[in-house]
Order: sequence, then structure tokens, then C-alpha cells
Amino acid sequence: MTHKMNYCNQCGSPLDLRVPEGDSVPRHVCQDCGMIHYLNPKLVVGCIPEWEGQILLCRRAIEPRRGLWTLPAGFMENGETTAQGAMRETLEEACARVELGALFSLVNVPHINQVHLFYRSRLIDTRFAPGVESLETALFAEPEIPWKELAFRSVTLCLKAYFADRAAGRFTFHEDDLLPQAGY
Amino acid sequence: MTHKMNYCNQCGSPLDLRVPEGDSVPRHVCQDCGMIHYLNPKLVVGCIPEWEGQILLCRRAIEPRRGLWTLPAGFMENGETTAQGAMRETLEEACARVELGALFSLVNVPHINQVHLFYRSRLIDTRFAPGVESLETALFAEPEIPWKELAFRSVTLCLKAYFADRAAGRFTFHEDDLLPQAGY
Repeated sequence: MTHKMNYCNQCGSPLDLRVPEGDSVPRHVCQDCGMIHYLNPKLVVGCIPEWEGQILLCRRAIEPRRGLWTLPAGFMENGETTAQGAMRETLEEACARVELGALFSLVNVPHINQVHLFYRSRLIDTRFAPGVESLETALFAEPEIPWKELAFRSVTLCLKAYFADRAAGRFTFHEDDLLPQAGY
Repeated sequence: MTHKMNYCNQCGSPLDLRVPEGDSVPRHVCQDCGMIHYLNPKLVVGCIPEWEGQILLCRRAIEPRRGLWTLPAGFMENGETTAQGAMRETLEEACARVELGALFSLVNVPHINQVHLFYRSRLIDTRFAPGVESLETALFAEPEIPWKELAFRSVTLCLKAYFADRAAGRFTFHEDDLLPQAGY
């Protein structure tokens, strides 16, 4: 996810790490063309696909967290909206088509430079299947959720809030920040 | 905002534009080390600073939209949360300290690969002033908002929704997508 910033994307010259004029933090600045290479957080977009009260989860076929369960989600791409990204990832990871509802949660994960967004959604049918990045896809009723085998803390937070809201009969928007600790 | 992707950041070799194995869209792939350079949307984070019913706006000293008015906002940085970014930008652009409330709106601007987030907020005091990227900062009551001189459509959308919610006595979370047309 992170890589070494050594050379300028534009002209291929070496980069310096220094504070540009008028700025306050060090940036990767090209020694030749002067271009400043900013690094910005990435959005991870996904959804909470529901079918007759059950939730569709995917068991990851790739690192990090291979073998653990997650909501369908992935990096937002250029040229799409957050909602389009969430639907694309659901199709890619679970071969599933969803009708998207409101944005349900935003989780900041600043130590890995990510912001996670999850949408409420309803599966259109049960023709889901593992995509290339998943080992398995399955529906789980609330008591069956594999809480100890969830891949990411943002997914745990999101599902807990989702079930709490559903029990209360009222869905609201949730915002959380995750601090660094063991794992994601 | 956009620059040419010609060389690998990691090893300095030329990049090819091709579809990597297992992918479905063309990426910038290093001819030498094989690294794939993904391009992802950027988050713009800001807030709606209120003081006794008035809203703090900044007149832009920089392009794009130099001379036009905007809410304090800017690119989210690595290592911070969306809320921290919104407060930092408000301090940088308007030298203003705010107490942040709930996230108020998310606006997708897919044709420029951006997602804009605005938080509700209250100014802590009226000691605001133009930062280096602003020509002027001022408080506006609703009837005084310079609607025809606002810099960005996401700011217009956000302020309209804000005043509508305030009039209704109930703030909700808003999500919108902006399609390409003249301007931002």
C-alpha cells in the first residue's frame, strides 16, 4: 500500500524530502522540475448487503487478513462516485448486485491513511459467489456473524452499529475514528 | 492537480499504460520493477463555521476560482482524520478556531476525482483573519451570502441544504453527486 517515493513521476529525476515555501510539512519535491508530490489518504468504499435480515460477508482470498471475513469493500477509483465504487466492489468481491441506500458509516483510520465508507444496501437476488479476491461468500443472520474472524475493525464497528440501529428501528449516520493498535 | 505519469516513483524507470493481470482497467505499470501506480480520488475536507447565525466565508487568493468566496476547505493530509483536516484547513485559510459538530454533507465530484466533506461547526471566537490562501474573510447572514460569487458548486449545494435544514429546525446528513458542466 505504501511505497518508497524516490523519483519524480513526471520527469524521472530524484526527489528531495523538504518543506516547500509557504508550506509547513516536508513533501517529496523534484530536484529538477520542482514538482511537489503530495500524499493523500485513500477512500475505501463498501456496503452492508442485506437479504431477508441476513448480511452478505466475503472471506478474503488476499492479504491483508487472508481467510478472514469482511463486508465487500475496496479502494475507490478515479472517475466514479462513492456509491458507484461501493457497488463495483460488491460486484467484484461477491458477484452480487445491490440496491444502494443511504451512507451508513464513515470510519477514519489515520495511521494507515484511509477513510472507510459503508452504505446500507439490499441484495437484488441471491445469485452471489466469490469473486477472484474472495474464498467464500455467505449470508449470516445476526447471531451467526463470525465476530472473532472479522478482517477489519472498521467492519466490526459498522456491523455493531448496524444491528444496534436495526434493533432500535431507526438508522442514523455513524462516524468513528480508529486509533492504532494491533491490526487494522 | 493532475500531472503526467511517466516514470516510476520507486525505481525511476519508464511506466507503461496497460491492464495488469487480474485487473480490468489500464494502469501505470513500471517496465522495470513492475510496480502498479494506482490513481485514487482525493478527499477535500472543510466546515461550515457559524457565529450567531452568520457563516464565515473566505475569498480565495489562489487559483482555481481566485477572488470568489468559499467555505474553508482543502485536501485532507495523510495521518489526520477528516475532522482534524477540516479544522486544520479552517485554521489555515481563515485563522479561525472552530468546535466541530456532525458531518453535514458529502459531495462526489467524479470528473475531477474528488469527494468533498463538510462539517457543521461553531466559531469559538471572532478572531478570524485571511490566511495566506485567502484575500478576505467575513461573516455573512443568510440573505447576504454572495451566491453568484461562490467558488464551487459543492459549496453552493452545502450552504443551500444547511439553510434549508436550519429553517426546518433539523439537521440531517446530505449526499450529492455533481455532474460535469462549466466550472467546478
